[in-house]
Amino acid sequence: MAGNSFGGLFRFTTWGESHGPAIGCVVDGVPPRLPLAEPDIQRWLDRRRPGQSKFTTQRREPDQVRILSGTFEGLTTGAPVALVIDNVDQRSKDYGAIKDQFRPGHADFTYQAKYGIRDYRGGGRASARETAMRVAAGGIARKILGDAITIQGALIQIGADRIERANWDGNEVERNPFWCPDAKAAARWEALLMDVRKRGSSVGAVIEVLASGVPAGLGEPAYDKLDADLAKAMMSINAVKGVEIGAGFKAAELSGEENADEMRIGNDGRPLFLSNQAGGILGGISSGQDIVVRFAVKPTSSILTPRRSIDRFGNEVLVSTPGRHDPCVGIRAVPVGEAMLAIVLADHLLRQRALGAGPAAPELG
Amino acid sequence: MAGNSFGGLFRFTTWGESHGPAIGCVVDGVPPRLPLAEPDIQRWLDRRRPGQSKFTTQRREPDQVRILSGTFEGLTTGAPVALVIDNVDQRSKDYGAIKDQFRPGHADFTYQAKYGIRDYRGGGRASARETAMRVAAGGIARKILGDAITIQGALIQIGADRIERANWDGNEVERNPFWCPDAKAAARWEALLMDVRKRGSSVGAVIEVLASGVPAGLGEPAYDKLDADLAKAMMSINAVKGVEIGAGFKAAELSGEENADEMRIGNDGRPLFLSNQAGGILGGISSGQDIVVRFAVKPTSSILTPRRSIDRFGNEVLVSTPGRHDPCVGIRAVPVGEAMLAIVLADHLLRQRALGAGPAAPELG
Amino acid sequence: MAGNSFGGLFRFTTWGESHGPAIGCVVDGVPPRLPLAEPDIQRWLDRRRPGQSKFTTQRREPDQVRILSGTFEGLTTGAPVALVIDNVDQRSKDYGAIKDQFRPGHADFTYQAKYGIRDYRGGGRASARETAMRVAAGGIARKILGDAITIQGALIQIGADRIERANWDGNEVERNPFWCPDAKAAARWEALLMDVRKRGSSVGAVIEVLASGVPAGLGEPAYDKLDADLAKAMMSINAVKGVEIGAGFKAAELSGEENADEMRIGNDGRPLFLSNQAGGILGGISSGQDIVVRFAVKPTSSILTPRRSIDRFGNEVLVSTPGRHDPCVGIRAVPVGEAMLAIVLADHLLRQRALGAGPAAPELG
Amino acid sequence: MAGNSFGGLFRFTTWGESHGPAIGCVVDGVPPRLPLAEPDIQRWLDRRRPGQSKFTTQRREPDQVRILSGTFEGLTTGAPVALVIDNVDQRSKDYGAIKDQFRPGHADFTYQAKYGIRDYRGGGRASARETAMRVAAGGIARKILGDAITIQGALIQIGADRIERANWDGNEVERNPFWCPDAKAAARWEALLMDVRKRGSSVGAVIEVLASGVPAGLGEPAYDKLDADLAKAMMSINAVKGVEIGAGFKAAELSGEENADEMRIGNDGRPLFLSNQAGGILGGISSGQDIVVRFAVKPTSSILTPRRSIDRFGNEVLVSTPGRHDPCVGIRAVPVGEAMLAIVLADHLLRQRALGAGPAAPELG
Repeated sequence: MAGNSFGGLFRFTTWGESHGPAIGCVVDGVPPRLPLAEPDIQRWLDRRRPGQSKFTTQRREPDQVRILSGTFEGLTTGAPVALVIDNVDQRSKDYGAIKDQFRPGHADFTYQAKYGIRDYRGGGRASARETAMRVAAGGIARKILGDAITIQGALIQIGADRIERANWDGNEVERNPFWCPDAKAAARWEALLMDVRKRGSSVGAVIEVLASGVPAGLGEPAYDKLDADLAKAMMSINAVKGVEIGAGFKAAELSGEENADEMRIGNDGRPLFLSNQAGGILGGISSGQDIVVRFAVKPTSSILTPRRSIDRFGNEVLVSTPGRHDPCVGIRAVPVGEAMLAIVLADHLLRQRALGAGPAAPELG
Repeated sequence: MAGNSFGGLFRFTTWGESHGPAIGCVVDGVPPRLPLAEPDIQRWLDRRRPGQSKFTTQRREPDQVRILSGTFEGLTTGAPVALVIDNVDQRSKDYGAIKDQFRPGHADFTYQAKYGIRDYRGGGRASARETAMRVAAGGIARKILGDAITIQGALIQIGADRIERANWDGNEVERNPFWCPDAKAAARWEALLMDVRKRGSSVGAVIEVLASGVPAGLGEPAYDKLDADLAKAMMSINAVKGVEIGAGFKAAELSGEENADEMRIGNDGRPLFLSNQAGGILGGISSGQDIVVRFAVKPTSSILTPRRSIDRFGNEVLVSTPGRHDPCVGIRAVPVGEAMLAIVLADHLLRQRALGAGPAAPELG
Repeated sequence: MAGNSFGGLFRFTTWGESHGPAIGCVVDGVPPRLPLAEPDIQRWLDRRRPGQSKFTTQRREPDQVRILSGTFEGLTTGAPVALVIDNVDQRSKDYGAIKDQFRPGHADFTYQAKYGIRDYRGGGRASARETAMRVAAGGIARKILGDAITIQGALIQIGADRIERANWDGNEVERNPFWCPDAKAAARWEALLMDVRKRGSSVGAVIEVLASGVPAGLGEPAYDKLDADLAKAMMSINAVKGVEIGAGFKAAELSGEENADEMRIGNDGRPLFLSNQAGGILGGISSGQDIVVRFAVKPTSSILTPRRSIDRFGNEVLVSTPGRHDPCVGIRAVPVGEAMLAIVLADHLLRQRALGAGPAAPELG
Repeated sequence: MAGNSFGGLFRFTTWGESHGPAIGCVVDGVPPRLPLAEPDIQRWLDRRRPGQSKFTTQRREPDQVRILSGTFEGLTTGAPVALVIDNVDQRSKDYGAIKDQFRPGHADFTYQAKYGIRDYRGGGRASARETAMRVAAGGIARKILGDAITIQGALIQIGADRIERANWDGNEVERNPFWCPDAKAAARWEALLMDVRKRGSSVGAVIEVLASGVPAGLGEPAYDKLDADLAKAMMSINAVKGVEIGAGFKAAELSGEENADEMRIGNDGRPLFLSNQAGGILGGISSGQDIVVRFAVKPTSSILTPRRSIDRFGNEVLVSTPGRHDPCVGIRAVPVGEAMLAIVLADHLLRQRALGAGPAAPELG
């Protein structure tokens, strides 16, 4: 109930602070006999790792993951998989006044209010560093999903600047430092972010994550709807302020005719949807269409510009946060969003398996 | 894991289908010695009840709730509170072809895919009727929150027509059939919905729910963040496609300076925020500011206009859904959103109590 | 967390007090397309029903169960199954002094201590009446287990009088009012209980429950061991004070040689155990042998003999409990124990299915 | 659901295999601002550590615990506490035939049946080594309980040889290698175990664990009864086959008069029980009396004497297990039982706090 675990059948628990000796997680509910070794996880961590471009924090962490349990001779055994990453680059320093001050937009004030104590070093437990373990757990989730289900995230907006849908190129996503599918937008963003950084400011972003190949039937109808679990998964990522499925907020503006995705029988004799306003989820259950999730990330709160705040003794202060901060934390949220989507799907895949509900699709014809 | 329960310490489980004999819920974790009788719940149900205006479904249900357990001499005992509402107006009828057809935008297809069977009468378990029990459970949650915490929802957009923030009048919300805080918008919506209904169409909406008086310190940092639980709570409501906290998707467009709410010491010697982009939640924990949640509801899928679909035998069909349907289901979602907000807050209030964390706010001065 | 639910994937929640309008439960996680109607549950309830012999309480309850949700045209739909039994024979009466007194051996004192309020009528929530809903949920669990898994309980000891193992006759269990497999012991118990009742006293009992046909592989290794879940299941039944698996406490007296069940290959080419000290569970996981669980039930606390106690005002009082009480509540615990065994097995069967772990038994030969 | 976690509000998750690089756990739900450092945990681990006497396994593990998260400047922060112990003495070796054979009485067969794969080195996840982490988590639980609640375990039976209750001396428990409160029994056991060891055999044991100072009101009435959770906690310890509360199985032989503990008002004006057949728990809720739990441990399955078994290819084999094994694993189960009792109490203490139920005891006088 202290909330450091996520998932039902596929369930992981994370621990660790930004400036402690290590961070880690325990992944429980991993089915046995899946091939799993450190590179299967490391490849995803490398995508999230800071210090890779001038647009992400310059903290240099190798983020080398070790598997401490749950595998034997290269296969999972059904026992919990413990993962750990040592914190290398903590840069211990004198925190000075900052340790008693509440940085605007940070969790400093609320942690103090909740616990009456806080580890102020690097944000402690509230650091985005925690998301590394989501990415690691996501690597295991992908093993459960198998190759037939693919997941890809992309940055579709920085500040007020959105991509052109018409320019979407899946391959472009891996080519620029923004996970941007629109090469022209990527070029604009480079300039935009250079300027933001120069001004010691920051900017928000919107991420879209897609899953293809998801069978119909995943998700529980009432409270553990697939979209409800996805909303929780994404909103639990640091700095996220909004989540949408399919048409999302735009759905409010649509007519019933526009919104309800019509169906035909495809050439393969299978159900075929003619549109995907639903984002692949109807009544909380996957329809077999692509799952489409979008989420908004607020601008980094750590900025150079001095901001008014208070300290824990009730003094009014001015706070500025020098140092190595991402001008746009949304960029690194892309692999995290992908991981959370994989995790939710893996969980519901196992749940559906438990039901033993034969038909993954209606008996047709 | 079948997902018909919600909450941690304050936890309720709902059951029932649209056309079964009754719907109900069990609310577990209700603290003892709270005054509780049926009118305490009925008053909220009456706000959600269909058939109250020409803009909501004409199904006429008295929705009379009965408490079957958990109270004694007008007080809760700590035992589970069972609530039940008999289904009166089921209007049994010949379902004809519809029982094998998948209505576009409905859960018909996905229920069939998941379970290989479905109760097609009135949408079965997928009916919005399930939300009555959320409202009922919300009535109990409000007892836990007490009078110091107030919750109010409002409809802020129908179709593409939004309210003017400047026109916001809290009292107006109870005066029109839309829970609209802007009297001018309410007037426009009346015409808009008459037109929608005439065309046999439907339209979506956006709801905003606020909680005032929430103490700082509620919420768990990592996965059970207060906003993550709220996102799940709202997204689990039928037809919801998007959820925002505070500035929400707009936060992506803000600069770090604009977004981070500055703080001062108020005249009462307490922390004072100068803005509320965060929507009352920082790092997943309440800050003491108003909690602000917004969610988008898609247009009703049940429309008169025939739409292309298939049936479960693989035939291509045309489906139209005559009958008593809300042109805008978003209207009735207002009390449901209020209830879910109350439920999430009550749950986290109990969780925080368990921590025994003394200071609800930092030691100031 | 208020503890009125039991199980993981197969999960039920009970509610209701002895003298309220009804008792009920919600069973969630029932797989779809199982044939289920009221008689499937009623047959088990009839075994537990009070008032059936002179040795059980004379409260006369028809205990007629109704299914309010989760089935359609005689099959489960995957939606939660709500069951309810109206309380018919509450015999409202003047509770007099008893409402403030703590009956020795009852939960009166501890409920008051925990909640600061209690429903004193008929024991309220602490009444053995709650176990009816375990039996009802057990009826659904048996549907999941199917016919290949059989469960039978038996009373093997009343007071200090134990059955002779050599006299065990499975058919005898259904022939006497004690569920006793030893006809000679049953005869003795008839006299024994007549005497106990005459003296206004009561006596304890030991129950043994067996499950045959359980596949190897059910149970989770560490904390949700099959035996750990069974221990919780049985100990949660009112008045139970001890639980054993297989050799149980006797295992403490055995040598390693005696205790470790040897294995051979049976004539059918399958693993064959030469003894069953383990009670069918090794390392928390079923071995394919019979599951053997035993539990001890204390004597009914409600007795005629006056006993010293206190009331909630701190007065010392004498309490005697006249009325219709079982001289041996252990008798009616037999069907309850069977139900709890069925429930635990059904839950772990679904969990194992989720793992998708192919081989229910090792690859032999 | 894979069962490597235990507890509700105080919840820990363990991981690790006997011969992996390390074992560990994550303890979530630890209230903030508790003093906690490694020695607070190490002192309990030292009691459980193998290699301390000739009667426990000669595996030499320093079992040095490290805290990797959740504390700051010597206090808990409310964040999850990660603990890790490196495995030092794995003695890698050629496992030869044993890797395919099922040792009678071990989990070898059932792990293979469940998962289709197993880590055979030192028992893998099924090793008693896992219990070290229960002891570690128990150290944190004791911090929550505070000094007013004391817990002490004792060995009260080895094989068929029981202590004399009249000889009970609490101080004696720490003086002999058996945690035996009866000096005379301890002397007999020394000879008994020397003989058992000489014969390459093993023997079972019974442990009793007591908690004093527990307030009335802990535990949930129906399924999470305090005794039900204790039964699960103890039965989940490796090799445990039976659990009793208070009079336990003996309660079956008692009359209602003998069994129901009478009450008076003590000299301090507080409720006073005249006996404790209930073991401190009535209706699943603590009464304020001592909590008394007993559990039976089977004899070590790893014995020198060859036993008949099979291997995973279906061959009949003879298995003997040379090496460093405890002749009586029950001895080391004493600190584990203490830890599990502390853990269950800490969990229910937090749950009760959440209820905010004022009176820990009835309003008297």
